[in-house]
Amino acid sequence: MTVVSEERNKMKEVDREILDELLEKKDLHTLKEKIDQYNSVDIYKYIETLDTFHSVMVFRILRKDDAAEVFSKFNTEQQVNLLKAFTDDEIKDIMDDIFFDDMIDMIEELPSGVVKKVLRFSDDEHRKLINEFLNYPEDSAGSLMTIEFVELKRYMTVKEALDYIRINGLDKVTVYTCYITGPERKLLGFVSLRDIVTATDDTVLDDLMEEDVIYVHTHDDQEYVASVFRKYGFVALPVVDNEGRLTGIITVDDILEVMEDEATEDFQRMAAIAPDEQTYLEQTPWKLAKHRVTWLLILMVSATFTGKIMNRYNAMIQSVIALNMFIPMIMDAGGNAGSQSSTLIIRGLATGDIEISDYIKVVFKELRVALVVGLILAGVSFIKCMVIDHVEIGIGLVVSFTLMCTIIMSKLIGGTLPILAKKLNLDPAIMAGPLITTIVDALSLMIYFEVAHIALHI
Amino acid sequence: MTVVSEERNKMKEVDREILDELLEKKDLHTLKEKIDQYNSVDIYKYIETLDTFHSVMVFRILRKDDAAEVFSKFNTEQQVNLLKAFTDDEIKDIMDDIFFDDMIDMIEELPSGVVKKVLRFSDDEHRKLINEFLNYPEDSAGSLMTIEFVELKRYMTVKEALDYIRINGLDKVTVYTCYITGPERKLLGFVSLRDIVTATDDTVLDDLMEEDVIYVHTHDDQEYVASVFRKYGFVALPVVDNEGRLTGIITVDDILEVMEDEATEDFQRMAAIAPDEQTYLEQTPWKLAKHRVTWLLILMVSATFTGKIMNRYNAMIQSVIALNMFIPMIMDAGGNAGSQSSTLIIRGLATGDIEISDYIKVVFKELRVALVVGLILAGVSFIKCMVIDHVEIGIGLVVSFTLMCTIIMSKLIGGTLPILAKKLNLDPAIMAGPLITTIVDALSLMIYFEVAHIALHI
Repeated sequence: MTVVSEERNKMKEVDREILDELLEKKDLHTLKEKIDQYNSVDIYKYIETLDTFHSVMVFRILRKDDAAEVFSKFNTEQQVNLLKAFTDDEIKDIMDDIFFDDMIDMIEELPSGVVKKVLRFSDDEHRKLINEFLNYPEDSAGSLMTIEFVELKRYMTVKEALDYIRINGLDKVTVYTCYITGPERKLLGFVSLRDIVTATDDTVLDDLMEEDVIYVHTHDDQEYVASVFRKYGFVALPVVDNEGRLTGIITVDDILEVMEDEATEDFQRMAAIAPDEQTYLEQTPWKLAKHRVTWLLILMVSATFTGKIMNRYNAMIQSVIALNMFIPMIMDAGGNAGSQSSTLIIRGLATGDIEISDYIKVVFKELRVALVVGLILAGVSFIKCMVIDHVEIGIGLVVSFTLMCTIIMSKLIGGTLPILAKKLNLDPAIMAGPLITTIVDALSLMIYFEVAHIALHI
Repeated sequence: MTVVSEERNKMKEVDREILDELLEKKDLHTLKEKIDQYNSVDIYKYIETLDTFHSVMVFRILRKDDAAEVFSKFNTEQQVNLLKAFTDDEIKDIMDDIFFDDMIDMIEELPSGVVKKVLRFSDDEHRKLINEFLNYPEDSAGSLMTIEFVELKRYMTVKEALDYIRINGLDKVTVYTCYITGPERKLLGFVSLRDIVTATDDTVLDDLMEEDVIYVHTHDDQEYVASVFRKYGFVALPVVDNEGRLTGIITVDDILEVMEDEATEDFQRMAAIAPDEQTYLEQTPWKLAKHRVTWLLILMVSATFTGKIMNRYNAMIQSVIALNMFIPMIMDAGGNAGSQSSTLIIRGLATGDIEISDYIKVVFKELRVALVVGLILAGVSFIKCMVIDHVEIGIGLVVSFTLMCTIIMSKLIGGTLPILAKKLNLDPAIMAGPLITTIVDALSLMIYFEVAHIALHI
């Protein structure tokens, strides 16, 4: 969580050198003056380059809200190191100022011993709230939301609201959309700061309030939440629980991360890798290997089937060995054509451009695309067989015709399997290149040998 | 462009039926009252279900700003139809209220005859501005930005600023970040509405202003702009030209779209498809076929090389035909292992988690991952050869050893080619599954036959 639209200076390379110098000279007064101007993202990037000793030194001179925000950007390992070096008072200061959603993210990752140390200073009510938030399923709206929002009442006047925002607004994530709640914190509506600022002082919020606000539920999946943001272009969305009580808000900066993570997850699944939230460089080779080996094993064992087909036609291959050289080309063309179709459909399903009900449209479209692409490939491959490979015309025809059939079959399989997966509530992304290739390989070889068998009388 | 954080009611299925009924009864007064409450996205979704005649009828009763915003959401074909049905006055009203970036997007797509009709009402200055914006390269910051922002001067007091915002703010995309400009519109800094609202009336903006604001240039690529938004979590970013003059702002809702489009483009490139901004269902079969056939042809012709290798070892295959059945498995395992590596690296490069300078780290990591994965696959495949395929132990050993070598080679090629592409200023996404598979196929077959040649003395 970054405070939405908080913009401060960008740190340039030359600034870092100045900071390094000041730190070296232990001129903490000037250092503080300098560093306070920078954006917390850049302060984090700067501290990340220092050792723990100097990091703690810089942390001590940061503004309290910066310290909390910078701290929340470090990864778990770095946080543990820092927490070990901080005094109790320093830990308390950071915990007081850290945004609630960042605290939850942190507590979820920290070793339990460290969590105890961190939560020593929380009162009972706070602890109860933390436990409640820890219980929201991963990737749910509840796990994304934060509690720092401005809550107003419908009977307040514009002047009262502005006074309230002046006093309470500064530690909120956003003051630009204020939520109106009734008894038991039921969400009644919202009013934008734009409307408050442009109204007269004695206007009652009730007159400015928009009712039936667009909101999400604590248990909604983050992918759905992202789609709501995308559809409406909002900066923040309120989150309500089953009883319609306002429990938090989600801001768009967290959604940018969700969108990136969801796309990354799809890329991983589509390449037959078990998804992981850590970046490539963060993962150990063991972990990377574990995520990759399962699917490779499944696909390898599935290829047995393709091997059996090859085996069945051994006699045919031995009598016309020229057939063998086209096997890689036919297998690859089928795999590639199928991957093209499945990728487009998987992505369309993910962005919402394609729905299960478009099934017939997709099949019909893939069929027409396959006819065009198949004819072109068959034509070119026939010429290639004659001019480059110098094979008999019969074999050239068999290869071209097989290619045509393979393309049509691959595109139909690649186009339909992702939709079928979605229909069965599976992730369509598993129906991508690797799996499609394995399926299509077996089928295309069968077509190849059967066509050869019939056409060449072997 | 949607006004950032403008939230209005969500239209439910039941509401649509009520609207349909009112439209049927031509009770336009009640219809207007109802429809005015809804969010422009939902109004658009509703009108989209109507025929042109009824669409125009609903357009006539919309609030002027809604009409412009709803209109900008339609696709080009629908816009042309509507423009034909609108009167001159109606066109003028929409053009007056449409956001500038939406107008530019529209003009870029509309047939030139319609553009003339639309621009008939613009004055010379406006036309000059439009031409300037049309000249920004596609996918640049300039093509994303809009001109509706609040511009203040440093000598203004808080009271003057609030008065200015009250009068001018309502047709701006956002009033929450106001930009301070000096002579010749040079960007000096910014001040947030939060700071204005929480300051006393006679404070001068100069004291509230943050200098050295983070901005982008008109010619920056949209991918870079998105990365700045992701890094800092901003809601809006100012855009300056070469002379440092403030020319527009970009808001986060447009960045959500950019991120989605960039991911989609990578998915397409990685599946060997020429990228297209239209959705799958919008593209004609001809267009889809055109985007797919080029790479399929390139890959097919490249497979000739693999065919030649098969050809060279014809004698060996004929003497030990059992070797043939493992060809699909070895080819697929190599392709899949290579795709896994290249996908992770391509995605890491796209999100900025991996940089060119990480080259050595990547190679070393892939090598270790490949050793682990290769050993497991080799072990399992040896057991499979013995238990399921019942081949001689010599062939089992050749297959397992080849598999091990293939995995290592594929992972190294898959890990390094995307980084090499980036180094050469090519899009790393082309170094994905299909191309890697073709390269790895040839090499793995060569390994297979050479290992067999040496080990089995054939």
